[in-house]
Parts: sequence; C-alpha cells; structure tokens
Amino acid sequence: MFSSLTYQHRRDILQDHVDTGLLLFLGNIENPINFEHNTYPFRQDSTFLYYFGIQVPNLAAVIDLDNQRIVVFGDELNIDQIVWMGRQETLREKCDKSGITDCRPLSALKDYISKASLSGQSIHYLPPYQSANKIRLGDLLTIDIAQLKPSEAFIKAVVAQRSIKETQEIAQIEEALRISVDMHLLAMRMAKPGMKEIEVANAIRHLAADQGAPLAYPPIVTIHGEILHNSYQLNTLKDGDMLLNDSGAETAMGYAGDLTRTFPVGRTFSSKQREIYDIVLQSFTDARELLRPGIAFKDVHISACRTLVAGLIDIGLMKGDPDEAVRQHAHTLFFQCGLGHMMGLDVHDMEDLGEQYVGYTPEQPKDTQTFGLKSLRLGKQLEEGFVVTVEPGVYIIPELIDRWQAEGKHASFINYDKVNEYRDFGGIRIEDNFLISTSGYRLLGPELVKAADDIEKLRLDYVS
Amino acid sequence: MFSSLTYQHRRDILQDHVDTGLLLFLGNIENPINFEHNTYPFRQDSTFLYYFGIQVPNLAAVIDLDNQRIVVFGDELNIDQIVWMGRQETLREKCDKSGITDCRPLSALKDYISKASLSGQSIHYLPPYQSANKIRLGDLLTIDIAQLKPSEAFIKAVVAQRSIKETQEIAQIEEALRISVDMHLLAMRMAKPGMKEIEVANAIRHLAADQGAPLAYPPIVTIHGEILHNSYQLNTLKDGDMLLNDSGAETAMGYAGDLTRTFPVGRTFSSKQREIYDIVLQSFTDARELLRPGIAFKDVHISACRTLVAGLIDIGLMKGDPDEAVRQHAHTLFFQCGLGHMMGLDVHDMEDLGEQYVGYTPEQPKDTQTFGLKSLRLGKQLEEGFVVTVEPGVYIIPELIDRWQAEGKHASFINYDKVNEYRDFGGIRIEDNFLISTSGYRLLGPELVKAADDIEKLRLDYVS
Repeated sequence: MFSSLTYQHRRDILQDHVDTGLLLFLGNIENPINFEHNTYPFRQDSTFLYYFGIQVPNLAAVIDLDNQRIVVFGDELNIDQIVWMGRQETLREKCDKSGITDCRPLSALKDYISKASLSGQSIHYLPPYQSANKIRLGDLLTIDIAQLKPSEAFIKAVVAQRSIKETQEIAQIEEALRISVDMHLLAMRMAKPGMKEIEVANAIRHLAADQGAPLAYPPIVTIHGEILHNSYQLNTLKDGDMLLNDSGAETAMGYAGDLTRTFPVGRTFSSKQREIYDIVLQSFTDARELLRPGIAFKDVHISACRTLVAGLIDIGLMKGDPDEAVRQHAHTLFFQCGLGHMMGLDVHDMEDLGEQYVGYTPEQPKDTQTFGLKSLRLGKQLEEGFVVTVEPGVYIIPELIDRWQAEGKHASFINYDKVNEYRDFGGIRIEDNFLISTSGYRLLGPELVKAADDIEKLRLDYVS
Repeated sequence: MFSSLTYQHRRDILQDHVDTGLLLFLGNIENPINFEHNTYPFRQDSTFLYYFGIQVPNLAAVIDLDNQRIVVFGDELNIDQIVWMGRQETLREKCDKSGITDCRPLSALKDYISKASLSGQSIHYLPPYQSANKIRLGDLLTIDIAQLKPSEAFIKAVVAQRSIKETQEIAQIEEALRISVDMHLLAMRMAKPGMKEIEVANAIRHLAADQGAPLAYPPIVTIHGEILHNSYQLNTLKDGDMLLNDSGAETAMGYAGDLTRTFPVGRTFSSKQREIYDIVLQSFTDARELLRPGIAFKDVHISACRTLVAGLIDIGLMKGDPDEAVRQHAHTLFFQCGLGHMMGLDVHDMEDLGEQYVGYTPEQPKDTQTFGLKSLRLGKQLEEGFVVTVEPGVYIIPELIDRWQAEGKHASFINYDKVNEYRDFGGIRIEDNFLISTSGYRLLGPELVKAADDIEKLRLDYVS
C-alpha cells in the first residue's frame, strides 16, 4: 500500500469533483473456477485499489458526499476462519492504513444504501464488469440488473483523476516494467527451435511469479503474431519463424507493464522479415517522437500508419499515395488495430469505465464503424502524466487478404500479387510504454533491445 | 476429448435416470479479472465437460427428454473474430466429436426454453456457482435469482453417474497424478533453507504447466501446515521447519490429482516431528486398509481419528480412552477437518452439486453442527468405482488451544501443559488418492515416497 495520506488525498480530490450524493465502490470477490470454494487468484478492482488500497475480497465502500462520511464495509475473520486461515492483519488495521476510521460489517451496507436512497441521495456507481457485482448492485439498489445505470459524473471524475499518474504510480509502473523487461530477455535467451510456445510463456510467468508479480494479462507468445488475440500456444518453434512475445508483469500493488518484441527463432531475421521489421520499427520511432502534451493520439496513430504505408510501398506490397491510402484505410489490411492505449492499474487502463471516457471526448468521439479506427482505444489529446503504449505492427492475415482481394478492395493501393507471396509471413509488433512529460515523453522502465541488429546479436549469444 | 460414443453413452444413461422435462446445461464463461476482456484462464464446467466434452466458453445445451432431442447452443466465430483470433476448429466440428448433430446459435436458447416452459415441460438445472450463470438462469427462466430452484432429480442422476469413474476417467486421474507426483518430488528436491515458500509453489506450477496441466486448485505450500487453508506463501524456509505441500495437477481434459506430503526443510525431522509424523502415517495406513465397497467413509474417518488419538496418548498429548475421546470429538483439537473427499473432474468432486448428495444420503445425513464432522465432505458408504482422497493430519493451532483451554474443554482427554510445549509445532498431513475396487482399494498414480525414513533419504540426496 501507499501511505494513508495518498488514499486520503485521492479521496479528497474525488470528492471535489462530484457534487452531491453517495459514491458507492464495490470491491471484487474471489471468483469460482469449477465450484464455489475453488477460486481464481483474487484481484481487487482497480478503482477500489486506487482510492482505498485494500486487497481483500468482499469489500464495499461509500463516500457519502452529503454527510461527509467515508465508510468501508467488510467482515473481520471469525475464530472459525482464523482456525482455518490463520491469524491475519484485521480489516480494521487495513482500514487504518488507508486512513479510514469508519469500518462496518458488510451486512450494514444495504441498510446504508436504502436509507440514503430514501432520503433522496443519488447513489453513484461505476459500470460493473464482474457478474457477482452486477448481482450485488441489483440487490443493493433493488433494481433489475438490466436497469443498472452507472453514474457518468462518477466515471468522469475517476477517469480524470486516474488518467494523470502520480510519481509513486510511475515508480510502480517502472517496477512492473523492470520485471517485464527481464521476462522479455528471458524469452529471447531461451527460445529455440523444437521448443513449444507455451514453454516460453510458462518460463516468463515463472520469472515474474518469483518476484511476486502475476502477469498483467494472458501473455501472447506465438509464432503466429498475425493473430492478434492468440491464446493458442502449442505450436513448436522452428528455424525461420519469428516469435512474437506480448507480455507484461503486474506489481503486487496492481500496476501493469505491457511490452511486445518480435524476434527470430533462428539466428537472424530473413531478409523479408528484416525489411518489414525495420518498417515497423520506423513507424514505432516516428510515433514515439510525436508524443507530447496536446497532440491527439489519433493523429499519432494516423502518422504511424502513414510510416507503415510508406515502407510497404518501398517494398512493393502497397502502392499509390501514402496519405491517401491511410485516409481510405487501405493500411488496415496490414495494421488492423490501434497504435496504443492508456496503461496503469489496468493494462488497458480503466477499460471497465468505458472507452468513450478514457480514450475519447464528446467533442472527438470514437469512430466505432471504420475497420482499424474502431479498434483504436485512445484518440484524444495527450496530457502530461498520461501513460500510454505505442505498439505499431504489421500482420499478414490470409483470411483478410482473401476477403479483400475477392472484393477488389483498395486495389489501387494494394499489390495483391506481391501480398500473396507473404501469406505465411506472420506478424510483427514492437511495443513500449511512455509517460507523457512536459517536454514530450519518457520511456518507462529499462530500455529493452529493439533494433533488429541488437536483437540478432543478443540471439546469437544464446542460440547454439 | 474422449470418443463421441463416450459422450453419447453418458447422455443415454442420464436420460434413463430422469423421467421427463428438459435438462438444461450451462457451460462456463471467461471470467473477467479487472475488466471485461482481461480474463482468467477458461475452465469449462465439469458437468458440461462430462456430458459434452466441449471446452469453449459461452455454451449451453439441453437434453429434451420429452422430445428426444439434444441441442448444443453456441456461436461460431464470425470473420471479424477469425481475423482477431485465428481460424479455429468450428463449434460444429466440436459438436460432431461429441456426437451432437443439432447445434444452434446461442440466441435461440431463450426461445427454446420459453416454448418448453409454455408447453408445460419442467426445466431441470443444476446449482449455478458462477455469478454469470446465475444471471443467465434468471434471464432464461424469467425469474429472480433468489428464486432459482435447482432440480434434485437432475442433481441426483448426475451425482450417481459421475461418482462411478469409468476406466478412461481413472486413466485421466492417474495421468494427473503422474504429473502431481513429479511436482511433489520436485518440491522435495528443491526446498532449501533461505528459499521462500512461493518459490516452491511457482516451480511446481511451472512443471505442471510445461506438461499442459494447470493446477487443480491453488496449491498450499507452507511451513505453517497447521493453517488448513493457507494461501500466504511469503515465509522463508528455515532449518527445523517442515514444509507441507498440498498440490495436484489437472489434465487438459479436466481431471484432478490431490496429494499432500510434509517433509523437513533441513536434513531430517526433529524427534518431535518424527513422532507425530509416524502417528499421522499410521492413521493414514490404517484408514487406507479399511477402504472397500460397503464401508461408510465416516467410519473410516472415525477409525483414522482413533489411530491419531492412540498415538497422541502414547506421546502424552492426550490421555484417557481413545474411543471415548473420539466419541466426544476431543481429537478435533488436533484434527479439525475430514479424512477425505471424492475426486474426479473436480478436486472436491461435484462440490457444486451439494455435499448432501455427493457425500451423504437422506438416511445418513451430514452432521453439520459438530466441529470436525461438519468438515467431513464424505460420509456415505463407498462403492466400487469411487475415487477418494485419504488425508489425515495433525494440526497444532495456538488460537484453538487457547480457546479450548480457557473453556477447560475436554480436559480429561487433553494434556494442555504438554500440548502447549508444541504450540509452534505446525502441521502434518499425508494424502493419497484411491480407487475403490472390488477387493478393496487401489492406489492411483505412481507411488510417492511417504515413510519418514524414505523422505529423509530422498532429502539427504538433495539438501547440501
């Protein structure tokens, strides 16, 4: 936990940004796997963590704006549970560390909410993402789950606050990245022809776990980097493949790292691989150099797309005017997703609160229709204190090529004959995490090898 | 998956055991961690797995007894999803492998259920344990979640069938145990003074993962074996400690292993440790020898308790008549829980369906009041084909000693002065898994070192 002053300060700021009513926070539960008492590892809700810092299941809290009262609701272990689970720090002790003096049994929550409702207070709550909390909210508010209506004022206040990272949060993210960089170096050192993808994934998970860190998200470790959400990891690595490793650790306090590197399974990239790797790297570098307060991330995205297209024209996969190709979204045959996203307590920071608030504004809403842009999670102007990922890529997806070619789509920008020579190419992504600073940006965490030459050199040292 | 004939056969038998109505099966979803699309590893519901064998999220199925129709409801990937997730085996192909020809979109389920309800069919369903399925059931049946009423006929039919393991299920359990034994051997080889508990836990998780096996439950790896549900793993091992390792793998098909060993962190057990270890081992051996069809597991439990008490009397921790001590539950100061449980697709097999059905009968109901017996998950007569764990232990819990001593509880059976000399002793458990066979029992999986001498010998080979 941070100091109690941190949590008090955060709550103070939040209270200044919502006028009246009662802010209701629901912590997470322990989610059952295959029966009630066999549960997944507990992960506290990130907003609960941000304002209260208490990492035990089955909590709730209210900030009662009208009555200037902050209460945490939760149950202490009884003696039977102590026998079973051992003596632990009490909830009251944890509340103390969070600067909370009013701690009540969980059973008192419903009554508190009912009374507040009856007295005309608005009950503000955030969008629930776990089913258990949907049920809890329906029960607490005595309304149908389908009728739940999260508070826009509450969401906006939380997003505004959590978007600007405190110095101590940056330190946490850099700690997550320190471990994440070690994970990536391990992957680059251990990957060998004959090994399965999952062996690499298991090893990096083990490395993080030994430092007390779970992974921030299910790692993508694949020789099919073109499959963007690839959870299949049973392929065997072979010479000539590239391995794409998109993985990051989460600190014990819940902060994420999110890095991607793509490297050859053999000693070196093939010339085809190297050409496209350098295009992705150029796109990455160009995009990074644009990062600064005030620039719209959507513009950084479009600029990164333009760099990709220019490179793809150079090697004959695309043709025509790069600006026009990007304007018409022709690049989305190769780069189907967004350039990056906010990162913090969640790898996609605050995604549970809604992209329209986290990544966009009412004046610059998200394009939810256009292939490519509809996957861009962050479009709005960057501010000092934002932490973002930059992660351009080139992904050769045979199903997409076939569909577009059959439709004759963007035939003036795409050399389908040439593209078809790359059908089995796979995918390349390069991703780092940046703090938006006064002067521009700062790379977070230790620098991780990125240039093709450097990667090949590192691989050469390890691959026999 | 097993062959389609297996699933068809299982469904045939089930249909013979429920008369009329519609059996509704809900598969599991992917559970969110901290936002909707960051999810825990998917684990299919065990009953769904047993009757259908299909391991993808968001499925449902019905066995319509009145219309002789079996339908799986679920959605194929659309082209957008294929772009994102890669081409995969279709749901229809998976249904084929399960012997299912009628496969419909998930959206058709509600209509199917509504029509069945309107036509007067009973809708049978099992107790939901995941909140998402509580919501789904409420929605499908248009009733309040609090009003859900699982079908006793359905539960009983499933329990009767899943309780008797098929030969191929035994083979799966033995495969889980083969991996589990390797996990335990690794723990015994690697544990050293100075290491943290979690390092051992991480290493055995890694070993299992590399064989494609998740852990069947969160492993208990602790120098505080007396804490029965101990998830804290940040203690540092030191000479003189015992490490209790309760862990098991789960095969890719979902079958569990569940083993416990307790071993010295140093070269050998202390004489105090050795004495109690041998008592637990004697209890284990005596209990094992009683296993056979027809004996009530509650009687095996009681017998195991008696052996423990006899041993504790020998070393002066208890006194008086062992039978009388057990009758009065005086042994529960040292052995607070049950001797074992059913095991199969779940480590506590079918715990989601209710202990009153899985472990007891209406004629021999569970004692839900008495400390000790209320934690015995299995009491009923054993049958050929059951798979059970046997796991006696001695746990010295200071909080419990203080409470009992203050109350003068069982003072005629307990030498409190002597017991207090053991306050920091910790806990010992020994656990194996057995198939109930015609002639008695068969140890499942490879034999894992168990006698104190053998454990010390193995440790000596590895601890420097």
